[in-house]
Amino acid sequence: MVATQDDPRFLRSREAILTAAREVLLAHGPGAVTHARVAEQAGIARATVYRHWPRTDQLLAEAMATVPMPFFEAPDAPTREWLVRELTALARQLDHHDVRVIATTLAGSALWEDDMDARRARFADLLAGRLAGALEAARSRGEVDLHTAPRDAAALAIGPLYYRATIERGTTDEGVIATVVDSLGRWR
Amino acid sequence: MVATQDDPRFLRSREAILTAAREVLLAHGPGAVTHARVAEQAGIARATVYRHWPRTDQLLAEAMATVPMPFFEAPDAPTREWLVRELTALARQLDHHDVRVIATTLAGSALWEDDMDARRARFADLLAGRLAGALEAARSRGEVDLHTAPRDAAALAIGPLYYRATIERGTTDEGVIATVVDSLGRWR
Repeated sequence: MVATQDDPRFLRSREAILTAAREVLLAHGPGAVTHARVAEQAGIARATVYRHWPRTDQLLAEAMATVPMPFFEAPDAPTREWLVRELTALARQLDHHDVRVIATTLAGSALWEDDMDARRARFADLLAGRLAGALEAARSRGEVDLHTAPRDAAALAIGPLYYRATIERGTTDEGVIATVVDSLGRWR
Repeated sequence: MVATQDDPRFLRSREAILTAAREVLLAHGPGAVTHARVAEQAGIARATVYRHWPRTDQLLAEAMATVPMPFFEAPDAPTREWLVRELTALARQLDHHDVRVIATTLAGSALWEDDMDARRARFADLLAGRLAGALEAARSRGEVDLHTAPRDAAALAIGPLYYRATIERGTTDEGVIATVVDSLGRWR
């Protein structure tokens, strides 16, 4: 594959396959992302899909990888207000079908597929690290007395939004977000 | 199907198919639960699997339905201690691969399949109702000043455990459980 990666036709068919894989995923779920379905959706020969991605688990993982993850990126004081803003933005993202698809596919497929599990682990570490860093900085500035280990903040803060969106299939309102932020520590 | 349900061979093959579907699900994920794979796993003709379950989404939903859901069933005072016990039991369940499979399959497959979505909704309502009832009873006994609407308690209490188990793929310790319980209200 390395020798042909500069070929514009190769790049075009690669892009068409990724787009088709995302469309099939959003409409029918990860189990539907097969070589045959993706080839049909892309209007491309099945053999071409095989040439680019011999395994559909890798195709699925790559089709999901283009989703950006901008949350908790740039901590800002006062940290409590920043956290409320970031969690509100995340909750609004989790109102969308496609974001729920990405989240549940990541969690589910990772149980059986190594590529997906590596993505899940990177994603989880990124969020946990960003939140822990923001809380430690807030503590060092005297903004908060933490009720929790900083590395637990991601599960405590994101978990309720994720459960509400993917198990209860509902929306997270500002009352829940305030409760979540206050569960992390006593803010001054 | 109604006419043959009392036939012991019918019941035996039905049971064998459900067992095989569960085995395929746990080992390879919901996408692998196809008529062909389940027939092979059960050592049964594919036509027999089709006769019992014309659609694999219904087979998958039924294969998962045998998992019991004993959590938050019988509230007991003092409510804070009962909650800690129940959440600890749930966290220990979520340490197991098969429980993580059930949880992520329920959340994921429900996005595309009506049968699974109905199960997801019943499951979510059951847990939210049990927790809300327990917290309202605790409040009426003067055990707690709630920080949250009782119907939000399930997302707040279960969400962190679910995120830790399925996104972070880790275990929930007693520190997180204490933080979660204290986020629900001021316990006296």
